Amino acid sequence: MKEGKLVGRSVARREDPRLLSGRGRFVDDIALPGMLHAQFVRSTVAHGEIASVDLSAVRHVPGVVAAFTADDLELGDITAQLGRPLSEYVPTAMPVLARDKVRYVGEPVAIVVARDAYAAEDGLEAAKVSYTTLPPVTSEEAALAPGAPLVHDEAARNTLVDVSLFATDGIDEIFASAPCVVHVESRTGRQNALPLETRGVVAHWDDREEQLVVQTCTQVPHQVRTVASRSLRLDERAVRVVVPDMGGGFGQKCVVGREEIAAAAAALRLRRPVKWIEDRKDALSASFLAREQHYQVRAAFGADGRILGLDADVVCDMGAYSCYPFTAGIEPLMASAEMPGVYKVPAYRVRGRAITTNKAPTAPYRGVSRPQYVMVVERLFERAARELGLDPVEIRRRNVITDFPYTGVNHITYDPGSYLESLNLCERLVQDEGWYEKQAAAAAEGRHLGIGYACFSERTGYGSTAFAQRKMQVVPGFDISEVRMDTSGAVTVTTGTMSHGQSHETTMAQIVADELGLDIAKVRLHQGDTDRITYGWGTFASRSITVGGSAVRLAAAKLGDKLRAIAAARWGIDADEVELTDGAARRRDDTSEVLTYEDIADIAYLRAHLLPKDIEPGLAATATFDVFTDGTFSNATHGVVVELHQGTGQVEILRYVCVEDCGVAINPQVVEGQCRGGIAQGIAGALFEQVTYDDMGEPSATSFMDYKVPTAHEIPDVLIHHLETPSAFTETGAKGAGEGGTIGAPAAVLNAVNDALRPTGVELDHTPVTPETVHRALNLEAAS
Amino acid sequence: MKEGKLVGRSVARREDPRLLSGRGRFVDDIALPGMLHAQFVRSTVAHGEIASVDLSAVRHVPGVVAAFTADDLELGDITAQLGRPLSEYVPTAMPVLARDKVRYVGEPVAIVVARDAYAAEDGLEAAKVSYTTLPPVTSEEAALAPGAPLVHDEAARNTLVDVSLFATDGIDEIFASAPCVVHVESRTGRQNALPLETRGVVAHWDDREEQLVVQTCTQVPHQVRTVASRSLRLDERAVRVVVPDMGGGFGQKCVVGREEIAAAAAALRLRRPVKWIEDRKDALSASFLAREQHYQVRAAFGADGRILGLDADVVCDMGAYSCYPFTAGIEPLMASAEMPGVYKVPAYRVRGRAITTNKAPTAPYRGVSRPQYVMVVERLFERAARELGLDPVEIRRRNVITDFPYTGVNHITYDPGSYLESLNLCERLVQDEGWYEKQAAAAAEGRHLGIGYACFSERTGYGSTAFAQRKMQVVPGFDISEVRMDTSGAVTVTTGTMSHGQSHETTMAQIVADELGLDIAKVRLHQGDTDRITYGWGTFASRSITVGGSAVRLAAAKLGDKLRAIAAARWGIDADEVELTDGAARRRDDTSEVLTYEDIADIAYLRAHLLPKDIEPGLAATATFDVFTDGTFSNATHGVVVELHQGTGQVEILRYVCVEDCGVAINPQVVEGQCRGGIAQGIAGALFEQVTYDDMGEPSATSFMDYKVPTAHEIPDVLIHHLETPSAFTETGAKGAGEGGTIGAPAAVLNAVNDALRPTGVELDHTPVTPETVHRALNLEAAS
Repeated sequence: MKEGKLVGRSVARREDPRLLSGRGRFVDDIALPGMLHAQFVRSTVAHGEIASVDLSAVRHVPGVVAAFTADDLELGDITAQLGRPLSEYVPTAMPVLARDKVRYVGEPVAIVVARDAYAAEDGLEAAKVSYTTLPPVTSEEAALAPGAPLVHDEAARNTLVDVSLFATDGIDEIFASAPCVVHVESRTGRQNALPLETRGVVAHWDDREEQLVVQTCTQVPHQVRTVASRSLRLDERAVRVVVPDMGGGFGQKCVVGREEIAAAAAALRLRRPVKWIEDRKDALSASFLAREQHYQVRAAFGADGRILGLDADVVCDMGAYSCYPFTAGIEPLMASAEMPGVYKVPAYRVRGRAITTNKAPTAPYRGVSRPQYVMVVERLFERAARELGLDPVEIRRRNVITDFPYTGVNHITYDPGSYLESLNLCERLVQDEGWYEKQAAAAAEGRHLGIGYACFSERTGYGSTAFAQRKMQVVPGFDISEVRMDTSGAVTVTTGTMSHGQSHETTMAQIVADELGLDIAKVRLHQGDTDRITYGWGTFASRSITVGGSAVRLAAAKLGDKLRAIAAARWGIDADEVELTDGAARRRDDTSEVLTYEDIADIAYLRAHLLPKDIEPGLAATATFDVFTDGTFSNATHGVVVELHQGTGQVEILRYVCVEDCGVAINPQVVEGQCRGGIAQGIAGALFEQVTYDDMGEPSATSFMDYKVPTAHEIPDVLIHHLETPSAFTETGAKGAGEGGTIGAPAAVLNAVNDALRPTGVELDHTPVTPETVHRALNLEAAS
Repeated sequence: MKEGKLVGRSVARREDPRLLSGRGRFVDDIALPGMLHAQFVRSTVAHGEIASVDLSAVRHVPGVVAAFTADDLELGDITAQLGRPLSEYVPTAMPVLARDKVRYVGEPVAIVVARDAYAAEDGLEAAKVSYTTLPPVTSEEAALAPGAPLVHDEAARNTLVDVSLFATDGIDEIFASAPCVVHVESRTGRQNALPLETRGVVAHWDDREEQLVVQTCTQVPHQVRTVASRSLRLDERAVRVVVPDMGGGFGQKCVVGREEIAAAAAALRLRRPVKWIEDRKDALSASFLAREQHYQVRAAFGADGRILGLDADVVCDMGAYSCYPFTAGIEPLMASAEMPGVYKVPAYRVRGRAITTNKAPTAPYRGVSRPQYVMVVERLFERAARELGLDPVEIRRRNVITDFPYTGVNHITYDPGSYLESLNLCERLVQDEGWYEKQAAAAAEGRHLGIGYACFSERTGYGSTAFAQRKMQVVPGFDISEVRMDTSGAVTVTTGTMSHGQSHETTMAQIVADELGLDIAKVRLHQGDTDRITYGWGTFASRSITVGGSAVRLAAAKLGDKLRAIAAARWGIDADEVELTDGAARRRDDTSEVLTYEDIADIAYLRAHLLPKDIEPGLAATATFDVFTDGTFSNATHGVVVELHQGTGQVEILRYVCVEDCGVAINPQVVEGQCRGGIAQGIAGALFEQVTYDDMGEPSATSFMDYKVPTAHEIPDVLIHHLETPSAFTETGAKGAGEGGTIGAPAAVLNAVNDALRPTGVELDHTPVTPETVHRALNLEAAS
């Protein structure tokens, strides 16, 4: 990285003038002449065969223009595949609209298109769908029971993925002889990633370009294009996906949605624009959910507190369908591969399973299994510390990886990080604020203060190698960027990543402006248009700055080379005698000799006959970037202080300290925003949110009355401290900061709660930890 | 060029299904939410100082939203420059809206924006503009008269360009001693290129992209972007020009229009979409006009009919302003440089002038000076033939260039063409149909049949070298193309050229489909979007297939190399052992081994980890093409048979034969369409169309009642015969076919008319040749 003026600075967000003044354009802001509105007839049963679908009455509802079933639209299924031989994986098809069978309450069965959303809703009520109901499978126990009803007939059982990995030689002996073996069983609640903006799409057929234009709210525009074109049997170029401003995604929008394909199909059939905006009820119950996992893990420790082995069993309830492109394998494979985390674990065995149930399907929500397994591992360390009489920070200190690169028992090589440093600093920050003293004082008053930590790393910069390890059929590794300069010396950066709140318009521009020695006001990011770049994998897995940003920097560097070459040719000197600063090329030996970028662009475009014959006209450069190592690892330690309120069982977070290391922080303010938002979501998972179902598979949290989302009142201010261990594997030195907050929070919060509960002898390992649970634990103590 | 399956075949036009079924999208089809409509307050005087502009009443007209003068919008001028020192050129500024002075009737003075076009028209009537009128300059004589009023105060005279070129040593002696010297004085009428679709624009500000989107009807989208961004003082990237379907241009839309900039400025100011559609009255009188030139040329011949010298004086009446980017120099410089044409002219002298007058400005209409100078030169040959008692075809035969490459007295090198062959064949086709016998028989009946020919070439493939010769500040030489393939194996071709009727969607696809061995249905052209390619010069000067098509072929070839490289790597063989046919890569040594393009794309995009490390992911290639020679020359001979009707003076065209050679004809049907359309326009100039002004500079042909456009009734069927002398200077072998028809028709028609008039002794050298003129000539004969 060149010595930068902007990278590393909290440059003001370039998105904000637009967004804060209400000039953002979200999908629901789009209005096209003649636009129709769609709603979906959805299954009212969790499991059943569709006996009949009768839409004839729907078509007579005033304002309704059309109503289609899957067969009417001749739609191909969305089928996520694992590519390399993995005998343990059973692929299942997700029809765009349910055909023969429904598998969850809320599953789309038919689409109704009307002149407005009200008429479309009226149309839904006229639909007659009859089902032959089947017994619903609503829990892990039900799914795995012998003779359980099959969610997918094409699968012989309800387990779609079942892998057993690593199984270090002699692991059973290690456990048998270990001085200390601790065990944690943990269930994590089903959650909704809950972007502020629900899903939505506006699709229309463009006769001029012979393209179906799908303006949709997605993190993965090219992947939506690929799936839509295949489902609709169009050449891929005949689908253009354009993404407007987005109000969050968090993974719920990094998989391809059925409704966006169905709405596009209706627009194609009707040759009229069709809009669909998901309402909150559907968003809560019929969208992609996340997180429901069941861990049974034991850890062996030596008397000195050094970990000797991990033995784990993970079951992930993926719901009714395997999402595209990640498949039902994403969660168990992530947990299985990466569970040893920041610790030097000498022996490891894991079984990971994905099961299918009659609940809404899941998508990889921010952190993807890591919030769960980190929580379990951190609970194991806390428990071992108690058993061994060690300080919970000290036991971690004895086990975190300190010699890098480190190749783990899980065959993953970790690049340098500040595991120990972040742990020590986080503890010191908590100490320095006197929380240990406050805890003691509170205890003396009969109050319940607890202090908890979580130390973790997060693999980011997933390139081809890492995703190929995941055995995915599509390997979202590389990214492509184009950087072009126009005759005014202004630069447009095009990327295949897709900001849905991550401030890419700011951070990508910082990278380019520094690389080219340019005022950031002259740099503009263009994203979210599949016509503008051949392929991009979108934004997920903290990959945008690590992978996308690296491609951006490489492309900018290539453009810089061309600027230098043109200037050098004009001056008759070598290109390396030219430097780029302040929007101009300058001779190193005589900095009064200047060619501004406008001057160079004038030659490159408008007077190209002046170019040397070996330099082509134009000022554009494209670069691809991929990571052919195991990736790079961000890390952090979170420290939390909670107080449990005896009367209400409420968990109040008194202090939250985050020491994070995402390598080079392109824009610290943006990183802090990511941390704070992630921590809020992690706290939500630890203490508040849960999607529950009754025995018939009916979701019981379909509004914010029932799905408890923490507000600013429940979320504490967070002290953030940055460490910086630059990555050698990315062009920016950055490591990715999108998910870390979410990963650390549940573990730290749960450890703090358990620390506060220590006098009670109760330990809580499931999330969310509700006031009822805490109240019961505290009042057991009171009763004893 | 690879052995093609499609190039050279009259593949059905891919545009037609859309256009013929009414699904084309022209600029007036565009409707945006909240769109306003603009009209222009236009000057009512030809020459005057603006004393005051009062728009206050306009703003109170119901439905009017805003009204702006140039000062209100703070617009920069449009100034076309000649770049290299040319002391004889005087640059003049064209304000987007007139400021201090008006220079022609119809000049835009203010823009009125209203909720609909009716209200906008009402608004115009409320505008109060007062002028201090100045004496109008409405003719060459008035412009050049001593003490003439100045059209542009910044110019010391009304001559903007005055060049004297070549002046071969001893030319005066050649003329003094020549056995035969003939002279032609010719004036050509002011014409309107008259695209079926008038000009128009829809502009709106896009907050999301921070771009002013200008959807406009232009042949030169990137040039409109450059000018708009400079006039509006935006970064160039902040303007996006998008061109929808177009109903013709013919050069009128290859210059930047004031109204499109003004409408864009209003949209920027109001932050609302603004549409302007030119009405036919404005299109006829206030748009860009063309063609008004005055030639005085003499030619010296030997007794054997060989030409000894040409001595020419050309004055081009460019009207009130110098157009961007071509400047007022385009017409006199074209005529001066290229007048010797297809003939071996040993001595040459020319003076070329551009004058400015108080008439609507001109743009380079199809053929650009060539219809005029070819007519003059062909008249000179006819006249010399008469004087020397030679057959008019024979005298040409003795003079046309036959040894190629040939460097002329004008320092231009001509690449191989079929000058003699086309002449001989055209004569034979006329003979074979018995027209000479019919002429004799008609004469015996007292009827007036005439046979005329024109033999000419047209420089196309103007690259950097040729345009730099024209001393233009912006040198529209190169073109850039991108060819990309998606995961379905479908190909999108992006070009900087802009079809406004030339069938590029078909011909460019033919080139690519052949190059890649692909079904043409899998290839789609994308054009007319400045965001999609860094720069393109647009479509004019018959450059699209020659320059743009060459860039397209090179890009396709690069993509083909990548497809071969990926397949070769999979098979572990050399890339040259792989061939591309029928949508797949095949091993030459075992054609049963196949990787379809979908297979290769799957690797290149979705499983890029399988690529060799030296091959980047993605399937896209960009190529630039330029011509660093003097260009390439299409050629043709036109033969025409006319009958003059004694009673009405009507010129009836009985037969039209065109033998043309545009090198490789990518699609003969398309070439024929270009020929026929061009011939119709050439005939229109020869016999029908003229924009006239009264002494006060008031245009007198502002509707189709007065501006006489020939219809299918007046335009004959045309027999077209193709010769093919491939160009060595283009990647397609094509030479450009956009303008030839227009260039040859006036000369051939005028020669035929004069042949028919031979018994009268009258010779007509001015166009249009009106029925009145012919009637007078014939009845002189009858009276004599």
